[in-house]
Amino acid sequence: MSHNSFGKLFRVTTWGESHGPALGTIIDGCPAGIPLTESLIQPWLDKRRPGQNRHVSPRQEADEVKILSGTFEDDRTDGPVTTGTPISLLIENTDARSKDYSDIRDKWRPGHADYTYDAKYGVRDYRGGGRASARETAARVAAGAVARQILGPKVQIRGALVSLGGTVINRENWNWEETNENPFFSPDREIVGKWESKLDDLRKEGNSTGAIVEVRASGIPAGWGEPVYGKLDAELAGAMMSIPAAKGVEIGSGFANSAMSGKDAADEMRSGKDGPVFLSNHNGGVLGGISTGQDIVVRLAIKPTSSIRISRRTLDRDFNETEIETRGRHDPCVGIRAVPVAEAMLAIILADQMLRHRGQMGQP
Amino acid sequence: MSHNSFGKLFRVTTWGESHGPALGTIIDGCPAGIPLTESLIQPWLDKRRPGQNRHVSPRQEADEVKILSGTFEDDRTDGPVTTGTPISLLIENTDARSKDYSDIRDKWRPGHADYTYDAKYGVRDYRGGGRASARETAARVAAGAVARQILGPKVQIRGALVSLGGTVINRENWNWEETNENPFFSPDREIVGKWESKLDDLRKEGNSTGAIVEVRASGIPAGWGEPVYGKLDAELAGAMMSIPAAKGVEIGSGFANSAMSGKDAADEMRSGKDGPVFLSNHNGGVLGGISTGQDIVVRLAIKPTSSIRISRRTLDRDFNETEIETRGRHDPCVGIRAVPVAEAMLAIILADQMLRHRGQMGQP
Amino acid sequence: MSHNSFGKLFRVTTWGESHGPALGTIIDGCPAGIPLTESLIQPWLDKRRPGQNRHVSPRQEADEVKILSGTFEDDRTDGPVTTGTPISLLIENTDARSKDYSDIRDKWRPGHADYTYDAKYGVRDYRGGGRASARETAARVAAGAVARQILGPKVQIRGALVSLGGTVINRENWNWEETNENPFFSPDREIVGKWESKLDDLRKEGNSTGAIVEVRASGIPAGWGEPVYGKLDAELAGAMMSIPAAKGVEIGSGFANSAMSGKDAADEMRSGKDGPVFLSNHNGGVLGGISTGQDIVVRLAIKPTSSIRISRRTLDRDFNETEIETRGRHDPCVGIRAVPVAEAMLAIILADQMLRHRGQMGQP
Amino acid sequence: MSHNSFGKLFRVTTWGESHGPALGTIIDGCPAGIPLTESLIQPWLDKRRPGQNRHVSPRQEADEVKILSGTFEDDRTDGPVTTGTPISLLIENTDARSKDYSDIRDKWRPGHADYTYDAKYGVRDYRGGGRASARETAARVAAGAVARQILGPKVQIRGALVSLGGTVINRENWNWEETNENPFFSPDREIVGKWESKLDDLRKEGNSTGAIVEVRASGIPAGWGEPVYGKLDAELAGAMMSIPAAKGVEIGSGFANSAMSGKDAADEMRSGKDGPVFLSNHNGGVLGGISTGQDIVVRLAIKPTSSIRISRRTLDRDFNETEIETRGRHDPCVGIRAVPVAEAMLAIILADQMLRHRGQMGQP
Repeated sequence: MSHNSFGKLFRVTTWGESHGPALGTIIDGCPAGIPLTESLIQPWLDKRRPGQNRHVSPRQEADEVKILSGTFEDDRTDGPVTTGTPISLLIENTDARSKDYSDIRDKWRPGHADYTYDAKYGVRDYRGGGRASARETAARVAAGAVARQILGPKVQIRGALVSLGGTVINRENWNWEETNENPFFSPDREIVGKWESKLDDLRKEGNSTGAIVEVRASGIPAGWGEPVYGKLDAELAGAMMSIPAAKGVEIGSGFANSAMSGKDAADEMRSGKDGPVFLSNHNGGVLGGISTGQDIVVRLAIKPTSSIRISRRTLDRDFNETEIETRGRHDPCVGIRAVPVAEAMLAIILADQMLRHRGQMGQP
Repeated sequence: MSHNSFGKLFRVTTWGESHGPALGTIIDGCPAGIPLTESLIQPWLDKRRPGQNRHVSPRQEADEVKILSGTFEDDRTDGPVTTGTPISLLIENTDARSKDYSDIRDKWRPGHADYTYDAKYGVRDYRGGGRASARETAARVAAGAVARQILGPKVQIRGALVSLGGTVINRENWNWEETNENPFFSPDREIVGKWESKLDDLRKEGNSTGAIVEVRASGIPAGWGEPVYGKLDAELAGAMMSIPAAKGVEIGSGFANSAMSGKDAADEMRSGKDGPVFLSNHNGGVLGGISTGQDIVVRLAIKPTSSIRISRRTLDRDFNETEIETRGRHDPCVGIRAVPVAEAMLAIILADQMLRHRGQMGQP
Repeated sequence: MSHNSFGKLFRVTTWGESHGPALGTIIDGCPAGIPLTESLIQPWLDKRRPGQNRHVSPRQEADEVKILSGTFEDDRTDGPVTTGTPISLLIENTDARSKDYSDIRDKWRPGHADYTYDAKYGVRDYRGGGRASARETAARVAAGAVARQILGPKVQIRGALVSLGGTVINRENWNWEETNENPFFSPDREIVGKWESKLDDLRKEGNSTGAIVEVRASGIPAGWGEPVYGKLDAELAGAMMSIPAAKGVEIGSGFANSAMSGKDAADEMRSGKDGPVFLSNHNGGVLGGISTGQDIVVRLAIKPTSSIRISRRTLDRDFNETEIETRGRHDPCVGIRAVPVAEAMLAIILADQMLRHRGQMGQP
Repeated sequence: MSHNSFGKLFRVTTWGESHGPALGTIIDGCPAGIPLTESLIQPWLDKRRPGQNRHVSPRQEADEVKILSGTFEDDRTDGPVTTGTPISLLIENTDARSKDYSDIRDKWRPGHADYTYDAKYGVRDYRGGGRASARETAARVAAGAVARQILGPKVQIRGALVSLGGTVINRENWNWEETNENPFFSPDREIVGKWESKLDDLRKEGNSTGAIVEVRASGIPAGWGEPVYGKLDAELAGAMMSIPAAKGVEIGSGFANSAMSGKDAADEMRSGKDGPVFLSNHNGGVLGGISTGQDIVVRLAIKPTSSIRISRRTLDRDFNETEIETRGRHDPCVGIRAVPVAEAMLAIILADQMLRHRGQMGQP
């Protein structure tokens, strides 16, 4: 990963500022012959789109994706397919309101990248956070949709919110269907009411809160991953931590491993009809950086939205002390919309590792 | 990061199996003119070396480093300095006992990479874990020593064990000096006795436990890091998760952020005489993937050593059900020796980002 | 270089098919604070644009560039400047005529990438050559304009056509001003008439011819380049050979070196007031892969345009024998328009090596 | 390619100075299960080794290769095979004579990298050329031997010297067997006597000469290569130009294309029983950067050895004017020993592109 690209064989490059004319993704190295149309990408963008209920930002972005290159349909293909050349995906910015930006131009918002961009670059597109805006994640989600097409129907990638503001779901209630039925991607129907009250309260006081996202991939065969620095879990950790507001990543039992004994943490193996059966998955589907064939399980901690309507102490860009409250249409918990983003990152890393494994070992 | 290399301008490649003739590191892209001798590298290897007390593996590896290329001394240099060409560091394996490996050849040890290496590669150097052995981390530590030379004396990189088997240090007792005084790199003198008893008990039962490591870098100026995929914290997450047995990484307040409010999580800013002063460091010294000038703070969760003398269910390489207990000279808590390894990874990532920042922006 | 990206710190990714809706470039890693507007890029695109005289393709492409991201203007900048984030440049395709493509869909044109794209990808955007069209080079030229802005006014990058159809210029007539005065970028005014007759004849018979392009960079300090595989000349060779129709590259005296003696080939050195003065430049400004401070001199051989109106034997995509003549608006000598493209590639490689040198050694 | 590494999936990193203790290669990303022993690598090193006849340097380097990691033999393999982990190859320097280096320490040898290394790095291992010595190519040849093992017996990679000091072979005499029968790797027996006299004369006067090397790969299927910047021919050009003393590269008919007409340059196609048959190979087996199935044909121009016993004007490292003649055991024509080096580079690029093609498209 570097600058604005990641992936080695399946390589994703994103560009665009929050309030510029558009943002986009270039996907390079995609296998040819994969079915791909805008209508296969759009549903994933719709899942991430703001303005869909009162618990996320009321901004109205159409987030309509256009494919500008890399697909083709001829008399021998069954609909448009990838051609092996770069896929350019464009999303125009439609709700970038013309407004007074002088406050965020002059003051560094705590928790945002304002000060660090100024420190690094000496200049900063302050409109809506510019490049550091979570709006950039739309481009990741678009790329994730292409990755899903490569991984095919045997691989299932799903995400859920498992903790909001410290209130954790009951895993016994886990129901994947439920994640599509509530505004939080919660897999636990019973917690939804509590989370709604919590967010309503926070929104009233102009405050925000953090969350924990869990994403899982099923159907990954054993053998994907590159030891020792291109480990599957190392790349997942890097990919997840690159999501705006992410402050922690864990695989399988993660931090809980630190309190376990070796006896309990061992994922024992028995023989099944399709290969090994593991009696637990503390390792989250990865051993030595290589997939085991179990579900890949990743959790990431998302910090509270930094844009709040409560005044906080800060500096202006001349280093004078001042205060700021950030008005605008912000998500009280960015963790919610991080769910489809984390799914996309998981899909992209897996697609890349699949191609890399196939390159080295010649297996599908 | 991919395969056995990482870093972009300061690039580290490691090689070698646990019980092969030697292991090593190639460091490419190092600036020229940096003082470098074996005696500047050796102390960091000594810190990681096994056999130094009863709480780590009793193996006796000299871990003596040799510089095979990339340094030179002439009449105009003050001692040997780097030349800008690849630095080849070699560590011979001296304690690779000739012994009966048939058990680990034939059976997959739970929690180890045995099964996944077989699944990926079809062949596996089973002696002592081969490439997947934590012995590989000696090569990281050697590279870390070179990275420290690049970062120079203004940057301080230190590590500590902050939790062992679920018993957490008292942060009010934190004393960096203490980390050099006890066998656990604990910054809290008062917890040392508890950890000793715990490990003595585990060792007797042939069991093991997990831990949490914390590493910090001080003296990093604001501005290092590459948004949005080469973020400083994203690279740190990837680097830390690539350490054997790591299952979780967090930056600053990490997972605790998920339960905080935006009001409390804001790292407010005041004006100091050398630039901004932050009133807290929940973000661990990184905002938007770029350093803030505060301490960089990273924690990683290490799972319990998988090699235990307690029988666990597994399969042999013909997929027959069997059991295994792993005899040998293993660390009851690999988290301890992970401290110098995590320090090394932090140093390497920072050295690389320093050069990358200098490349893009021309600043030191 | 891989797939559709090249450069390490200054990284260029291009996308787009000849007859798709648009093509573009993403430039990543550009230093911040560099003045950049569309009007600084457009003149270079205009230089490459077809339809400007009878010796190049009569297609009418506006080739108007739009900057979609990566620049910003605020109250403290003097006009729009780069922000350090990805610069997305877009060029819409305006002259992609709707026409009957069945001939080039069904038959592989000799000398084109038709057969190899089908062999590799199994599907091919046959309209106007798709991704393999020289139209892609517009994106290179746009990126080259940004590279020039980074290199600044001290570096001068110029190109010329030095041979057309085997008729070589007289170097004693070399005049850089002249390259802007004739349709061939010839530095020798006296050869222009001969080349015009030659091309008129070829156009009449529906034939085409090859050429040799020479590009030079002045003002490069000694010290840029990365031995031993990232050598400045090695990267230039790769970059030039990636230009469509290029079949040979040479540096300095190039192939002529093969017939020289060591005594004559030595670029002897004398002392000048601004450092060394070389008495010749057989090495083309590069020794051991590192710039010497002399002019960088590169020549590339361009094969004749493969699209000719003379019938050639080929196969259709069912491997049946057939013949094809390629009608359309083709350049009789693609070498002419390769001049601005080669200049752009030279600028990009130099900008990248400048940043890499600054990253490693901290010098400008 | 950057610094001291190249290749993307099959990645080669070399290290070591001419007169240091050793030099070596790390090969990363090699498929597992490939037979590999020292005895499979050694013959290629022997082919490159100096001291084998009077026309090359009389140095006596054993160039004995040791495999330090990355291979393994167990009860299920038929001899040692690669394990998919990094292959570390070591060659000790045995003939690095202790001698007086003060002349090359203090003066910059024209045509060598002495001045440019000093300009870039400020320090330089002057003993025997240090890192810039052609001795580094032994590491390339070792890596090439591994690449050949991956490519397998269907792919044949061969090289020849086709011009020496301007005296060109007669292609009608081409006989591959002959390349093993004379000290020049000449495929034309009749030219051998002329070249011998020429070199004897040059050696007597302490002079040197240039040459042209041709390498060919047979048995490459259509479809390898990555447009548009990772083109097979672009990567070959970069790889060949990175060979010490290389000043030009051409593919197929190369520079001769510049004087051809499109009618003559077309590689027409007919149908054969195993796919297309091309009626010529002006494109050298590559179209649009992708292999056609024909032989890959590459030529490179090698400049005369810069180390000559004839006095040349130069500067010392304090920029004072002086003269130098380079005594020592130098090849009068480094082009000869460049033949096995160019073969190795061809093999490495092809092995990497094979794996990359397999990664993207899943085909062998």
